[in-house]
Amino acid sequence: MARRIDLNCDMGESFGAFTVGDDAAMLDLVTSANVACGFHGGDPSVIRATILGAKARGVAVGAHPSFMDLYGFGRRRISGERPEDLEAQLIYQIAAVAGMAASLGWPISHVKTHGALNNMAAEDATLAAVCARAVKAVDPKLVLVVPPYSEAMRAAEAAGLATVCEVFADRAYLDDGRLVPRSAPGAVIHDPQASAAQVLSMVTEGAIPTVGGKRLAVEAGTLCIHGDTPGAPAIARALRAALEAAGVDIAPFALPHLS
Amino acid sequence: MARRIDLNCDMGESFGAFTVGDDAAMLDLVTSANVACGFHGGDPSVIRATILGAKARGVAVGAHPSFMDLYGFGRRRISGERPEDLEAQLIYQIAAVAGMAASLGWPISHVKTHGALNNMAAEDATLAAVCARAVKAVDPKLVLVVPPYSEAMRAAEAAGLATVCEVFADRAYLDDGRLVPRSAPGAVIHDPQASAAQVLSMVTEGAIPTVGGKRLAVEAGTLCIHGDTPGAPAIARALRAALEAAGVDIAPFALPHLS
Amino acid sequence: MARRIDLNCDMGESFGAFTVGDDAAMLDLVTSANVACGFHGGDPSVIRATILGAKARGVAVGAHPSFMDLYGFGRRRISGERPEDLEAQLIYQIAAVAGMAASLGWPISHVKTHGALNNMAAEDATLAAVCARAVKAVDPKLVLVVPPYSEAMRAAEAAGLATVCEVFADRAYLDDGRLVPRSAPGAVIHDPQASAAQVLSMVTEGAIPTVGGKRLAVEAGTLCIHGDTPGAPAIARALRAALEAAGVDIAPFALPHLS
Amino acid sequence: MARRIDLNCDMGESFGAFTVGDDAAMLDLVTSANVACGFHGGDPSVIRATILGAKARGVAVGAHPSFMDLYGFGRRRISGERPEDLEAQLIYQIAAVAGMAASLGWPISHVKTHGALNNMAAEDATLAAVCARAVKAVDPKLVLVVPPYSEAMRAAEAAGLATVCEVFADRAYLDDGRLVPRSAPGAVIHDPQASAAQVLSMVTEGAIPTVGGKRLAVEAGTLCIHGDTPGAPAIARALRAALEAAGVDIAPFALPHLS
Repeated sequence: MARRIDLNCDMGESFGAFTVGDDAAMLDLVTSANVACGFHGGDPSVIRATILGAKARGVAVGAHPSFMDLYGFGRRRISGERPEDLEAQLIYQIAAVAGMAASLGWPISHVKTHGALNNMAAEDATLAAVCARAVKAVDPKLVLVVPPYSEAMRAAEAAGLATVCEVFADRAYLDDGRLVPRSAPGAVIHDPQASAAQVLSMVTEGAIPTVGGKRLAVEAGTLCIHGDTPGAPAIARALRAALEAAGVDIAPFALPHLS
Repeated sequence: MARRIDLNCDMGESFGAFTVGDDAAMLDLVTSANVACGFHGGDPSVIRATILGAKARGVAVGAHPSFMDLYGFGRRRISGERPEDLEAQLIYQIAAVAGMAASLGWPISHVKTHGALNNMAAEDATLAAVCARAVKAVDPKLVLVVPPYSEAMRAAEAAGLATVCEVFADRAYLDDGRLVPRSAPGAVIHDPQASAAQVLSMVTEGAIPTVGGKRLAVEAGTLCIHGDTPGAPAIARALRAALEAAGVDIAPFALPHLS
Repeated sequence: MARRIDLNCDMGESFGAFTVGDDAAMLDLVTSANVACGFHGGDPSVIRATILGAKARGVAVGAHPSFMDLYGFGRRRISGERPEDLEAQLIYQIAAVAGMAASLGWPISHVKTHGALNNMAAEDATLAAVCARAVKAVDPKLVLVVPPYSEAMRAAEAAGLATVCEVFADRAYLDDGRLVPRSAPGAVIHDPQASAAQVLSMVTEGAIPTVGGKRLAVEAGTLCIHGDTPGAPAIARALRAALEAAGVDIAPFALPHLS
Repeated sequence: MARRIDLNCDMGESFGAFTVGDDAAMLDLVTSANVACGFHGGDPSVIRATILGAKARGVAVGAHPSFMDLYGFGRRRISGERPEDLEAQLIYQIAAVAGMAASLGWPISHVKTHGALNNMAAEDATLAAVCARAVKAVDPKLVLVVPPYSEAMRAAEAAGLATVCEVFADRAYLDDGRLVPRSAPGAVIHDPQASAAQVLSMVTEGAIPTVGGKRLAVEAGTLCIHGDTPGAPAIARALRAALEAAGVDIAPFALPHLS
């Protein structure tokens, strides 16, 4: 079983004069940073500062592409987009952040899709295949971060991409491995102890406890830390402490291949 | 003297449902395409289609970055931007198009800045240095297309970048090598024969004829073909014919290094 | 039966340097112009020019609001938007165009929603109610243009708004009054004579012929003329001729109340 | 001399998921709110919420239009824009916020231009005239907030608009009535007591103390309170207290004309 886990957080989502999250605090607590690519947040200066902050701390970086939707912060579900258009948008975003990171001597190691796109690609095989193709087009060595039991995972594996499964500390799981929708009661786990227990089950026992009482096998590779929740740094510190107390090694799943 | 010249045209500037120019027609007439990067025009699908169209015809491609100004099409002069912010914007744009081009097997060979940024960097040493640093950060082997006798050329050379001088068929030159401002009388050369004569002087004799009667030395590497003028394809065909009649070889100044 | 019909066209959808459609030609052929409000197309200068062009020809103007989606031209289906957010977006857009029109002495007389929003509000009672509330909030005397047999029509009437039914010359109808989806065979009527026959049935007999052979009652108030189809002006001229030959009066359903 | 002053603050500048400032706290401390119009910040939901918050507290509202520059937050100096284009942009913005405010039963009473546009219109007579024309086109009864001794003031008066002079507590003044540029030493007054003294001189004695030791006559109508400075609410409370201690009446210069 995994005695090792990565902690990831979405970052670099500020835009111009508009600030989102407390990136500096979160960078001290995680081992991977998913860097916004400019389509839901993130301007070039913010992207650069985020990558430099990660490099200074040895935190791995990845691209975090989105639907083209700054106003909706990538959270609006957009349909009617041709798959080839979405694929081009993803290649553009990943390439922009990958190029910026390379120029700073701290190349990206992974990709994680953002918001509504991530949710939709988890369940829609066509979207999932688009995401996998786009990652592969930029660099087939990039790791795609995916939800367990998702179309995104299946498509990435079919495309020959390396994947890492992302799990949540504060979200309940259905018996089929999907998250309980936020609209349903019990979707969010507010109790820190319950949250820590779920994480330890997933990381040290390889089992997701579900709302129906099942235990689903999972190879948890990374734990999502929300940066925009009130008190996010404190929550992250508590999770780190629980993991370390259980003897779990906290480390990036991949680091830049520096030449 | 150069018996060889590249013909370049700005392309890929359409955005979503909004169409600019007749890229397909122009791609048949030029040897290099400057591809918009999304900040003044150009969406990811348009960028991809433009690169694929260039590849199919053996036309070299370059990135054509701009101020962040979709509404103004990059033609508004923007000041008060910190140099490091502009540098990040340029790296982001060049990297996005470079990554898209690489994914399509037709890597970019050059960079040419767009519109107001190109005009301002020609005369402002700080802006010129920003542009050179950004190109170098993405790939020091990229060629920077610059106006002759410009700060942009000096900064690129100081940075150790290869440069290619761009000249115009339809714009008159001042005695110091700068273009006559569009607001001044005689700025634009409307007569096709006068235009062809100016081009032949620059390309085959290495001399820019100026409004003051001087002949300024120039190593003309590429001739700018406007794609958005009414009748652009006909004008371009006439120039090609004049050059070919004079025995000038029309070819890209650089082609992708394919591995 | 109606011996009178309005011809409407979406206009003012260009943005900055990006041109869409041939507004000047279409303004000569229609009696109402739906003016884009800046969210899918239309910048303030284009909006002003469109209203002035309409005023010069006695063409009525209306606001044509959309989802906030410039890249997708308002054609992408966006969900997950809170109704109150969409309502505010519509009020903002209608108010902007209404204020511009008032400042030019040619006030708007109607509102027609655009693209994906129009399609979704036709079938979704919540969205339909949002649209009706927004129009009423700006000016309860504005007419809402709606598809027949739609939720949009029901919501507008429930809100006490005046409505005008929009019909299509070139789209086939299902037995329940909805359009045959574009993805289905026979959705678009390409034959000009079949198109004219459908229009005359709707306008002079008050009956929509359906694909199932029914004749649905309709009080057709306005006929949509597409401005972005190739050959749009010629198609519009042919329809006008057919209507005039049948003795139908072509006139706006409402004109500005000038004080 | 004025024993009465308005306190104004720029508000409603958040956009989508991006938050700027602490509008709720500032609304409790000011008597007029300048509401962003969507071009540098402010989305329709934010605009509505800001107006409703102002109405609930009896705070007057105005439109706060900007260059079209979301990324630069309206702080980048943009030139090369045709005056008629800028005029249309201002009409659009003012009309959008005016219409939203009217729909909420709390009409706008004034306009104050934002950021770089405000700075440029203070010194450029052409821009100043554009601003005045745009305000007048929407509603000639709107008050234009202007800097003293500015082109903006002269143009507004020439256009027959009512004006109110805005003064600053924390900015030093040159002998000609302009602000000391931020780049110069002593531009910003950091000492709260010096700041209060300057305000009392301007409000109760009608005199701006300048860096050269002059006392310039001013009819101070409104005092700008910055909402984005750290500790903004505390600074505003201290200024209010100083004014009230001096017997100055703190009230809006104009309130909505409700019918």
